[in-house]
Amino acid sequence: MKLLKEKIISDGKAIGNNIIKVDSFLNHQIDINILKEIGKEFYSRFKNEDITKILTIEASGISIASITALYFDVPVVFAKKTKSLNLDEEVYSQKVFSYTKNRFYDIKVSKNYLNKEDNVLIIDDFLARGQAALGLYNLVRESCGTVKGIGIVIEKGFQDGGNLIREKGIRLESLAVVKKIDDGKIIFQKNGG
Amino acid sequence: MKLLKEKIISDGKAIGNNIIKVDSFLNHQIDINILKEIGKEFYSRFKNEDITKILTIEASGISIASITALYFDVPVVFAKKTKSLNLDEEVYSQKVFSYTKNRFYDIKVSKNYLNKEDNVLIIDDFLARGQAALGLYNLVRESCGTVKGIGIVIEKGFQDGGNLIREKGIRLESLAVVKKIDDGKIIFQKNGG
Repeated sequence: MKLLKEKIISDGKAIGNNIIKVDSFLNHQIDINILKEIGKEFYSRFKNEDITKILTIEASGISIASITALYFDVPVVFAKKTKSLNLDEEVYSQKVFSYTKNRFYDIKVSKNYLNKEDNVLIIDDFLARGQAALGLYNLVRESCGTVKGIGIVIEKGFQDGGNLIREKGIRLESLAVVKKIDDGKIIFQKNGG
Repeated sequence: MKLLKEKIISDGKAIGNNIIKVDSFLNHQIDINILKEIGKEFYSRFKNEDITKILTIEASGISIASITALYFDVPVVFAKKTKSLNLDEEVYSQKVFSYTKNRFYDIKVSKNYLNKEDNVLIIDDFLARGQAALGLYNLVRESCGTVKGIGIVIEKGFQDGGNLIREKGIRLESLAVVKKIDDGKIIFQKNGG
């Protein structure tokens, strides 16, 4: 997605050879206009999949999923990472390993909000090692629903999450795939996104 | 806001005499269509305030703030509750007391995304004791920006947050004000919302 890659180049920042900082428009401050374009793009890629629900995970995925849901006209469900007083007792739950925090955490969705009739589009801001996306995929499997695909804004093509997902036969659409960070410069894959 | 109150009655649940569970449409599963109506309503109430930014807090406020931002055509900033690897070192930070968790936590916004030129609308899903809303208010004050108002979807009128905010002379607009929960029934204030 050309517009997104231009935005990443103009407003994003590379830190070291691993971190792509886009908190000026994607995951701390949010540029609603670029999100509308992202939502339209996900819609154009998945509009024939009869999507009934968009699933994401708190917190950075929520804004992207919500704006995307406008185009599909379906509800969003966001998986919770933290214990919540008000969460139903009956939940789907998966363990997800966080490489940045070096520990497992639980992600949860109430059983009321995913079921076997659902055709689910999973949305998240980043894909790196793929653990969060696979955790969301397993939540949907636990509900006997169908994952129609995973939509990612920025895939770190130099980490293995993308391969892990594609190897499972899951449809993965990443709007920008970063091949590498080279001396502070973000290099995209030619055919990625 | 009549439509919202009807939705709370039809799809919400009262638990005990304190908890209003609206996770079927507001803060776990999200009904994008009711959020559009909420966003329009906040816009109609604050459209003359020259709002430049909408500020909320992760996680439940993000969806509401994002859809509301469509009508104002301004960026959203969400305060972070948790430590993030990628957060700037230069942040505004406030301590917020959580009554449900019985401890203080820090909320943070990068200094890049709030400044003295900003006219800020603070948005959140619930107002109870008012600690999160006041924390967000103090973050904006720290940035020397102006808080033009606080927009809340559901105010628990039987707790003291609303009074704490109004006493400070801050404009508070709550779309539904719950007077009390009576034997499992949610009773709204006549003139609230």
